[in-house]
Amino acid sequence: MGKLLIVGTVAFDAIETPFGKSDKILGGAATFIGLAASLYKNDAAIVSVVGEDFPRPYLDLLSNKGIDTSGIEVVRGGKTFFWSGKYHNDLNRRDTLATELNVLADFNPVVPESYRDSDVLMLGNLHPEIQMDVIRQMRTKPKLTVLDTMNYWMNHTWDTLMDVIREIDVIAINDEEARQLSGEYSLVKAAAMISAMGPDYVVIKKGENGALLFHKDRIFFAPALPLEDIFDPTGAGDTFAGGFSGYLAETENLSFDNLKNAVIHGSNLASFCVERFGTERLQNLASEEIQSRLRQFRELTQFDIEVE
Amino acid sequence: MGKLLIVGTVAFDAIETPFGKSDKILGGAATFIGLAASLYKNDAAIVSVVGEDFPRPYLDLLSNKGIDTSGIEVVRGGKTFFWSGKYHNDLNRRDTLATELNVLADFNPVVPESYRDSDVLMLGNLHPEIQMDVIRQMRTKPKLTVLDTMNYWMNHTWDTLMDVIREIDVIAINDEEARQLSGEYSLVKAAAMISAMGPDYVVIKKGENGALLFHKDRIFFAPALPLEDIFDPTGAGDTFAGGFSGYLAETENLSFDNLKNAVIHGSNLASFCVERFGTERLQNLASEEIQSRLRQFRELTQFDIEVE
Repeated sequence: MGKLLIVGTVAFDAIETPFGKSDKILGGAATFIGLAASLYKNDAAIVSVVGEDFPRPYLDLLSNKGIDTSGIEVVRGGKTFFWSGKYHNDLNRRDTLATELNVLADFNPVVPESYRDSDVLMLGNLHPEIQMDVIRQMRTKPKLTVLDTMNYWMNHTWDTLMDVIREIDVIAINDEEARQLSGEYSLVKAAAMISAMGPDYVVIKKGENGALLFHKDRIFFAPALPLEDIFDPTGAGDTFAGGFSGYLAETENLSFDNLKNAVIHGSNLASFCVERFGTERLQNLASEEIQSRLRQFRELTQFDIEVE
Repeated sequence: MGKLLIVGTVAFDAIETPFGKSDKILGGAATFIGLAASLYKNDAAIVSVVGEDFPRPYLDLLSNKGIDTSGIEVVRGGKTFFWSGKYHNDLNRRDTLATELNVLADFNPVVPESYRDSDVLMLGNLHPEIQMDVIRQMRTKPKLTVLDTMNYWMNHTWDTLMDVIREIDVIAINDEEARQLSGEYSLVKAAAMISAMGPDYVVIKKGENGALLFHKDRIFFAPALPLEDIFDPTGAGDTFAGGFSGYLAETENLSFDNLKNAVIHGSNLASFCVERFGTERLQNLASEEIQSRLRQFRELTQFDIEVE
């Protein structure tokens, strides 16, 4: 059972989909990552920042899942990061209605002493300087560092982002981001180009079209589970990252075969995330449900062809 | 080794992609289906129509692959069906530049006597009345009838199309077509709705995002092989259908597990088709290449997770 350090936003989200509208609810990359990772046997901690308006029960919710929240700074008189978005009818596109950075604007992450030797470091989407700051605070180099980032940082902080990308082992981004980062349309070429920037493993998330794992000349693909309905895609990518890193922190096996399994576990949890608003489904997920859906993943993808 | 009857267009195509422009080359659904199916051990025949302008070497090419071409009517003084299209930069969209029906406008299919007891009937995309005419000419009901169709027939010949759909076992269409046919956006719901119209099996092709096979409450998914470059997507769907039906005609095993294999074989051949203009790659495909890529498919998708 390894230690997992998660860095990312803990926030309020307000979400509108074709199926309904949420109030200001619990959100943020680190929240989704943490809740997903807590479904595996690991020792996880979140480093983040919230304002004084952040409800104590939300922090308790994370603690009750076994997540160390001592690295979540509560800024007196500060307001919590807030994001609001509205999804189009096909759920593949969304408009951001509001982004209020608030306390995130001056965030100086402090990694708790006892997690500076974490086995797995999961860097959620954040300013690359914050990500780099955390990397520098580690006393020992993590066995695996996983990075999420987005187009915004490619457009505004390219050099710092490149510094971060040189330090990490796995980058997990979506297809659009992979294309922008590499300048290549073909995802095979994009992955090769990105890997040359540093990371040994490139994970390209394609939403409802699954996820690809690239390592040297090897490729693995996991589909998204076909669902009757997708209710709210918010947090699916972070949930994937949480399942992926949480499973690896539990198993402490960094073989390609085990990273394949981690991709399946991440995809599996993401399929739950999208069934309700925000973190609702992740908060209440029975082990039997997870196992049952892993069986569905196996039936969905496994075949037995004799090859000469 | 079963008999496979293929009905569809044999045509001229002129294709423009971001990578080049072809002359008038060999095309048509039945051509792609036949060439793909001929890579399996079966006794295949094509029913189609061409004009007097259709080069004898093209017919010889099909015969040399072991395909019976006696059901391809050559209309004296007639001109062969011609399609021309231009792909956008992302290759996912194309504009049709020309569609000249020519001899196809008055096509009355005649199934050769010796193929009226075929085991597998593959109905390529054509006017549903022609498809129905062929179904009626069969002396014995095929063990498996596979249908391809497109939006055009849904818009213009809905009732006849429904008559055909009631008679068949497998429908193989793309995601857009499945959504239009069913009126459902979710492909899981779309497949259930379409299955209720008749076919026991629904195959939904998603191009570079793979293919889904639905049967009652079971779902199987095959990805498209991630390729460095896609040169020309023309005929990929037909090649899939040819691999699918050709493999089933060889194995004569209609279990769900074997239909899964057929989907993998179809996806495998489609991955070759897109590497060159038109049928070029299919015409020259070594058995070892096919086997080698099947191994890639296995590596791409197979994992080993213990589920409790």
